[in-house]
Amino acid sequence: MKKKFKKVNAAILVIGNEILSGRTQDSNVSFISKWLNDSCGISVLEVRIIPDIETKIIKTINELRKKFNYVFTTGGIGPTHDDITARSISKAFKVKYEYHKEAFSILEKYYGKIRFNDGRKKMSKMPRGSVLIYNPSSAAPGFKIRNVFCLPGVPLILKSMIHNCTKFLKKGSKVFSDSINLITVESNISKGLSKIQNKYKKVIDIGSYPFFRLGRVGVSIVLRSQNKHKIILCKKEILKNIVMKQKIKRV
Amino acid sequence: MKKKFKKVNAAILVIGNEILSGRTQDSNVSFISKWLNDSCGISVLEVRIIPDIETKIIKTINELRKKFNYVFTTGGIGPTHDDITARSISKAFKVKYEYHKEAFSILEKYYGKIRFNDGRKKMSKMPRGSVLIYNPSSAAPGFKIRNVFCLPGVPLILKSMIHNCTKFLKKGSKVFSDSINLITVESNISKGLSKIQNKYKKVIDIGSYPFFRLGRVGVSIVLRSQNKHKIILCKKEILKNIVMKQKIKRV
Repeated sequence: MKKKFKKVNAAILVIGNEILSGRTQDSNVSFISKWLNDSCGISVLEVRIIPDIETKIIKTINELRKKFNYVFTTGGIGPTHDDITARSISKAFKVKYEYHKEAFSILEKYYGKIRFNDGRKKMSKMPRGSVLIYNPSSAAPGFKIRNVFCLPGVPLILKSMIHNCTKFLKKGSKVFSDSINLITVESNISKGLSKIQNKYKKVIDIGSYPFFRLGRVGVSIVLRSQNKHKIILCKKEILKNIVMKQKIKRV
Repeated sequence: MKKKFKKVNAAILVIGNEILSGRTQDSNVSFISKWLNDSCGISVLEVRIIPDIETKIIKTINELRKKFNYVFTTGGIGPTHDDITARSISKAFKVKYEYHKEAFSILEKYYGKIRFNDGRKKMSKMPRGSVLIYNPSSAAPGFKIRNVFCLPGVPLILKSMIHNCTKFLKKGSKVFSDSINLITVESNISKGLSKIQNKYKKVIDIGSYPFFRLGRVGVSIVLRSQNKHKIILCKKEILKNIVMKQKIKRV
């Protein structure tokens, strides 16, 4: 019997002028992508980075949430004037932007009544109907509304809470990967590799990525598939028909 | 007389499964954004990361090139089967995908007739009407067709050639920025900051970004504007009305 592979996908939406201006180097995209694939078998098929502009957030959320199984946003859920993700997403879903009772009480308890100022209160305002994504590191929770998950932009905090999304996610089949690192240049192997990719085109994605490290020029061939067995077969074929045939050194 | 500020914008399109899967950490976006702003006064207003899928590239290019003054793509212009940017962009513009005479001769000269194999020849195939973006580090040129600039994905190579785009770009007024780093938390300053942002909303973007470093928790307030003078005024106001008033320590 043929094994059935289940495909579940997602998009990531990074909201923040600081990433667009180049001031801050994003690291959340690669972290979320890896986590979604390894822990949930979910493939990220698109990423967008947009500014802190309400109309832009509304339009993009409404586009992405219809096209992908899940959307993960990062950024814009803090206490300052430029944190407009929760309000914008309320407008995208056409629901009220209001205090979330549980979030309010978590934050009130965390800060204490006296220190619970307006900025801190703002962090408990969310689209009506949101479910909380708990934050063990700095209390202020993220939230999920339908298939949209809203997480903070600070990588340390995001990392501490992402596993709290798991229970809401439908799992897909994990994408496995393997790689072969060669001391060669891409144009020396492109013909043979193209032939093998053609043979496996329905089951394996073969990527070829030049690298330069420790004074060496090389190529990483990366095989990705939901079918682990096919990766083993395909790797053998590359080693036999390209690497050994052309006597290319491996690293 | 009021000084006129010129706004020119761009989008960046990262093409590559390796970025989406999280295998490779992108660094081109922040480099290109900074370069465009500092050298050309061009603001990046959107970034997309998409897989090596022809239909997806065509659709995205056709959307972005109409919405922004310029589009910069990275990735997918090498010699292997997964390098499909040039072919896809030919289709997006509905022009022939063919050998570019000058690119062909540059590469032939670089590799020598004997080593100029099919993979290497492929790197000189481009949309008809393309203009070359010269590559001083590994010869294979990028190209420009109308308002779309196609650059390689390898950061070292991209960095070595991006200045060759300058002559094709209409310049805008540079966006200046300044920042104030404080030992405080966002929610302590959000009210005052929001007031000042409101006052300057037409000319300055004020961003607020928490940081955690060397065991310290702090906030960077970043002011961005094409009007340098207004940044100075706004900074003074923040220092007087928030920092000094609340006796917040600066770093």
